[in-house]
Amino acid sequence: MGSLASPHLSRRGCGNVALLPSSCWLYYLYNHWMIQAATYFFIFLNLSLAVFEEPAVYPLPFLATSLIEVLCLLVFSVRLMHFAKVTPRNIFWKDTKNICVMVAILMSLTDLAVYGTLRIYNVRSIRWSRIVRPIFLINFAESRQIRRAFRSIRNTFPEITYVFLLFMFSVLMFSLMALKLFGERNLQTAEGLPYFTNYLEIVFDLYVLVTTANSPDVMMPAFDFSWWYALFFITYVIINTYIFMSVFLAVVYNNYRKHLKNEIRKLAYMKRRKMVEAFNLLKEEEGAEFVVREAQWKQLVKLVAPDISNSHRELLLHISDDEQKGFIDKKSFVRLADLLNIQVITLKIRRHPLGQWLPHIYNSAASQFLRGMVRHRGFVWTYDVIILINAVFIALDEESPYISYAEWVFLALYIIEILLKVYTYEPRTFFGKNQFWNWFDTLIIFAALTATILNTTLKSTTEYNSQQILDIVFILRVLRLIRIVDSIQRFRVIMNTLINIVPTMLTFGGLTLVVYYVFAIIGMELFQGKIQFFPANSNAPHALECGNPALKDSMFARAKYCKNNFNNFASSFIVLLELTVVNQWHVFANGFANVTVQPAKLYFIAFHIVMVIIIVNIFVSFILEAFFVEYSVEKSEVETAIEQKIQELGMGIQEEELQDEKLLDNMESAEHDLEGEGGTKPPAKGLVFKIASKRYRTVDALLQRMFEAEIPPEDEGPSFEEILNLSPTDAVPSNVTFEAAA
Amino acid sequence: MGSLASPHLSRRGCGNVALLPSSCWLYYLYNHWMIQAATYFFIFLNLSLAVFEEPAVYPLPFLATSLIEVLCLLVFSVRLMHFAKVTPRNIFWKDTKNICVMVAILMSLTDLAVYGTLRIYNVRSIRWSRIVRPIFLINFAESRQIRRAFRSIRNTFPEITYVFLLFMFSVLMFSLMALKLFGERNLQTAEGLPYFTNYLEIVFDLYVLVTTANSPDVMMPAFDFSWWYALFFITYVIINTYIFMSVFLAVVYNNYRKHLKNEIRKLAYMKRRKMVEAFNLLKEEEGAEFVVREAQWKQLVKLVAPDISNSHRELLLHISDDEQKGFIDKKSFVRLADLLNIQVITLKIRRHPLGQWLPHIYNSAASQFLRGMVRHRGFVWTYDVIILINAVFIALDEESPYISYAEWVFLALYIIEILLKVYTYEPRTFFGKNQFWNWFDTLIIFAALTATILNTTLKSTTEYNSQQILDIVFILRVLRLIRIVDSIQRFRVIMNTLINIVPTMLTFGGLTLVVYYVFAIIGMELFQGKIQFFPANSNAPHALECGNPALKDSMFARAKYCKNNFNNFASSFIVLLELTVVNQWHVFANGFANVTVQPAKLYFIAFHIVMVIIIVNIFVSFILEAFFVEYSVEKSEVETAIEQKIQELGMGIQEEELQDEKLLDNMESAEHDLEGEGGTKPPAKGLVFKIASKRYRTVDALLQRMFEAEIPPEDEGPSFEEILNLSPTDAVPSNVTFEAAA
Repeated sequence: MGSLASPHLSRRGCGNVALLPSSCWLYYLYNHWMIQAATYFFIFLNLSLAVFEEPAVYPLPFLATSLIEVLCLLVFSVRLMHFAKVTPRNIFWKDTKNICVMVAILMSLTDLAVYGTLRIYNVRSIRWSRIVRPIFLINFAESRQIRRAFRSIRNTFPEITYVFLLFMFSVLMFSLMALKLFGERNLQTAEGLPYFTNYLEIVFDLYVLVTTANSPDVMMPAFDFSWWYALFFITYVIINTYIFMSVFLAVVYNNYRKHLKNEIRKLAYMKRRKMVEAFNLLKEEEGAEFVVREAQWKQLVKLVAPDISNSHRELLLHISDDEQKGFIDKKSFVRLADLLNIQVITLKIRRHPLGQWLPHIYNSAASQFLRGMVRHRGFVWTYDVIILINAVFIALDEESPYISYAEWVFLALYIIEILLKVYTYEPRTFFGKNQFWNWFDTLIIFAALTATILNTTLKSTTEYNSQQILDIVFILRVLRLIRIVDSIQRFRVIMNTLINIVPTMLTFGGLTLVVYYVFAIIGMELFQGKIQFFPANSNAPHALECGNPALKDSMFARAKYCKNNFNNFASSFIVLLELTVVNQWHVFANGFANVTVQPAKLYFIAFHIVMVIIIVNIFVSFILEAFFVEYSVEKSEVETAIEQKIQELGMGIQEEELQDEKLLDNMESAEHDLEGEGGTKPPAKGLVFKIASKRYRTVDALLQRMFEAEIPPEDEGPSFEEILNLSPTDAVPSNVTFEAAA
Repeated sequence: MGSLASPHLSRRGCGNVALLPSSCWLYYLYNHWMIQAATYFFIFLNLSLAVFEEPAVYPLPFLATSLIEVLCLLVFSVRLMHFAKVTPRNIFWKDTKNICVMVAILMSLTDLAVYGTLRIYNVRSIRWSRIVRPIFLINFAESRQIRRAFRSIRNTFPEITYVFLLFMFSVLMFSLMALKLFGERNLQTAEGLPYFTNYLEIVFDLYVLVTTANSPDVMMPAFDFSWWYALFFITYVIINTYIFMSVFLAVVYNNYRKHLKNEIRKLAYMKRRKMVEAFNLLKEEEGAEFVVREAQWKQLVKLVAPDISNSHRELLLHISDDEQKGFIDKKSFVRLADLLNIQVITLKIRRHPLGQWLPHIYNSAASQFLRGMVRHRGFVWTYDVIILINAVFIALDEESPYISYAEWVFLALYIIEILLKVYTYEPRTFFGKNQFWNWFDTLIIFAALTATILNTTLKSTTEYNSQQILDIVFILRVLRLIRIVDSIQRFRVIMNTLINIVPTMLTFGGLTLVVYYVFAIIGMELFQGKIQFFPANSNAPHALECGNPALKDSMFARAKYCKNNFNNFASSFIVLLELTVVNQWHVFANGFANVTVQPAKLYFIAFHIVMVIIIVNIFVSFILEAFFVEYSVEKSEVETAIEQKIQELGMGIQEEELQDEKLLDNMESAEHDLEGEGGTKPPAKGLVFKIASKRYRTVDALLQRMFEAEIPPEDEGPSFEEILNLSPTDAVPSNVTFEAAA
């Protein structure tokens, strides 16, 4: 069962490890987090080889890098063989991702052997297999999200191709018009070059105009010549930049949504199906219907979710066996995966340690007053004002000694704030798992304190003034100011949405990494060494032309872009990032085409199409969808059931206190209620449950729930076979192991 | 009743004009299309005054422009008084839009008087009231769509403000970090200026980086200094350019959607409500229920929709009175507005005129063969190939005489094609109202023919070679190539969606006009005359610095942007358009700040926020929504009912032929069926109906239908008063007149 479907059930699908047959033990081993972490380590080690291979950022001998590569490939082979062991033969061989990995391993080994041999005879060849390395990142079972994104791109491809063709048709037609309108006017560009005389150059210029990178320069010569020619460019920009680019976004977004919905629905069906199978295995007859007995249910939950507390398990049992009949019917049983997926936070209501150790002092009038003060809104406001004053001090000149003393005062004030808060609120609750901002504040301030002390010590002991530490001190000081955002509710809501998006943004990090990696390797082969960077006052020949006379008088040299080159892996990445931002990409394209051949521009156009038109649009779609989901999602049915039960059992926190905008306030008021003068509902056991607030849910989980709501509870979905045939790549490993466990 | 709710009912809400009281006649006059057109004419005349006033594109004396302005204001006053006559007093005075217009008229008159008086005494003052002119465009009842867009912006405002503040906070924080990190390094920009030493300049530079306009230039000095500083800019771009800009889009889109939904739901309720009222006025008792008699129903339909044919009316009656009972019940009656809104095309099946006049020749074997050939797919393909060859010829050099002869050959071929098609298909059907592409092809080709002949004549008679005509010939020649798009189905679908979007895009034209107008007027007051354009070889002092020594060595002068100035209304518009495209806007901002004062940059920042962050995002939202609606809308219930009835009556075209991708094919096959060897269902009356295909529906109508489907048919919606209180501005005029008519 996939991680999305139910992490608990999948991780322990085999049950008690010690008692199980070897195949199941193998599966358990395959999914062990350490083995998975090791796989990731080797994948990234393999990818990072590009940093050490020629052209290297940190050169290592060829022997070293190739040995590491062989080691990585060996690990991948073992991992794949391991996977083959836990997967039925026919399914293993039907799965494209396994074939992909095998082919990639073989290709890499062959290339390495050939390159090594040729190297011995001093023949220079190309290490072309380096571009297949990202395949390992994509195709190992762990990178489900990246694979899904790639599938989404593949599905979007046909539709986007048609729009792209239409768009290119429009560009070609406008270019033809431009050639006819401006070609014979003997106009000149700002650089004194002939204007719009060559059809292919016009096509390139107008393609660049779509990205707005050469606006308004490309229009100025025609505009200077006559007023009315501006209309040509205005029409062009409206049609191609505004309309077509929006259509690209619309097509990508629409497909992304459709595809996501389909994938997640498949997962939901799969989960439902498997729960039904599990039920059928465990069921016993009870009167007219089949049920699962309480004892068996408990054993199952203990097996699949050993981490949850006894009280949490009892809570789930109360919900599943609503009428205390001693058994669970099919409908409730099927819900188990959902129940386990809902993060129920067990809040242990503890008294403040000081209140236990020194009750006399802690509960004295002065102490009460102090704690009341810290809880007061005014306390937050005071510190907001202090932060603002701090901001002004940071901006002021560092030279004056008074200002450097002020820094110590501010640090002291912040530390006092933290101490006061810890004094007032129970420390373990204050530094709870979900208290993001408390952690953030404390860490930033202690880091700043450490760095400042370190910096002062270094300054006073030696004359050496460490720039790195100083930089870090500056950054930490400024980061402190973020706290002010957290004290304004409206900002907090936006921030929470953004924080929710972070995990899935890592998927786009992966996607971007893959695309960048491939383009960086190709770029290095094409352009390596053509453009050199020289420090400002270098005497090298052609230092101003980036060491290449072909760049004389070019925009590239004039804008001092020499350091933007493909001479090593890190530089390539930065260039590709600048190309992703789009502006001035035509200067790069022209520059690199000047030092090689004109068709080199195709490399840059290809990158623009892949990265900007497709991937950035998917990123934007994703953020749009995430925001809409955040705006629209309500509590799910299951969550409501759990909450109801929590309330019934009298172990809840008031619903109105659960608004996630007020999480910190909750903590405070909850504490306040329970600790102080006889709170409303102090539960006997000294613990309360609450459902984790929206803030800590990922968008993916939210989406899955949204779509699951569309499947009626009775629907068992299509058969396994059908689901399998729908998406062989995604469903296989989990499904098979489930059967093995059964 | 608004135009959205039901054009038929609204236009003739008062019934038969000649027989009606004067108040109703006044209302009829108010809504007469000629009066409305005249109002628009004066609105645009008033707006266009900016072209003739100082600083003018075409100067007119002050007396002339002020007389025209007074005339316009007079017309507006009369129009407003007219509106007051047909609106109850309390509603008229509660309506902000009337107050707005009155205030604007008064302000304009005052300003004109003051300015005129001062002018007599030679005191120069500012015609500040010119910026209120767009108010007339927005606030007259006809510009409902633009008003709605403005309302949508107003509603989005609070939420976008919070995101914007958070975003500005992030920019300010990064600027502070940048100041600390780079300020004391003595770095220099590519122009040799100090790098990142002034906080306000850093804020501006980093704001520009968000728009990507100065990437990667702004990063290069730090990057050249050290590798790691690139990370600062990468983080900045990811957070502010990618994430925040997407969040802006998400917020705008989400609000746009919410607001649109609300507006359209209100309209739908209003329509429902009014239909119920109409029913209550006309109802008679029939057994246990109230109904409307057939005769009255017919009279009503004749009054409200006099343009539809008798057969169409009969069809509607058949649908409303399904069981031929001679009366219409409430439920069917309420549907009337929807029925009238569905465009039912009455296709008169005519025989080809030649077939009637010369049946012998037209039906001969040769003629049959010819027609068969034209109908064959190969005919389309042949012409696609011809168009492609034509494209190559256009791109080739014009000088060779063979190529100019070839142009005549192509023209002849295209004309033959049209003649053949008209010979094969019935001409009145071929040039039907909905045959967009047929019209397009024919017009383009005849325009090209005319222009080419004109050009050749001019060339041969005089030596004068008219550049304008030649330009037009070129453009028409290239536009001809668009036809190839229409012969590929997938392209056609995309094109249809785009064509559907056009009408609503005019709303954005209006919105953009308003924003541009205000900014252009302000820009002219601020920057007029500061920057001058001189032709390439001018001897004027500072010709290379745009006539202003302050621009020496500036990017603005170096890029030859001198013609981008605010010296007249047209130039200002083009500059604002370039600012909308965003690229290089900082060069403009710096240039204009150099020739005036540094805070002038605020003008450019304000324009960026209003135009790019808000309006362009609304435009993108609109295109996204339009695409999703196109993808998701199915036939409505009412449409299905009509279609069913059409089929039942045996006056329909087969459903499968109604796929809108095949509209032209339909025409062909339908004709073919009916004309040739005894088609499947030749109706007795010689006419068929069909529902206008999706291609010719506007997005607005589609949306309205989507949302209407959510209101259950029994629901009569909230009371008039409630709807009115919800949106006084939108609902008043139609509602009142409805009551007057009742």
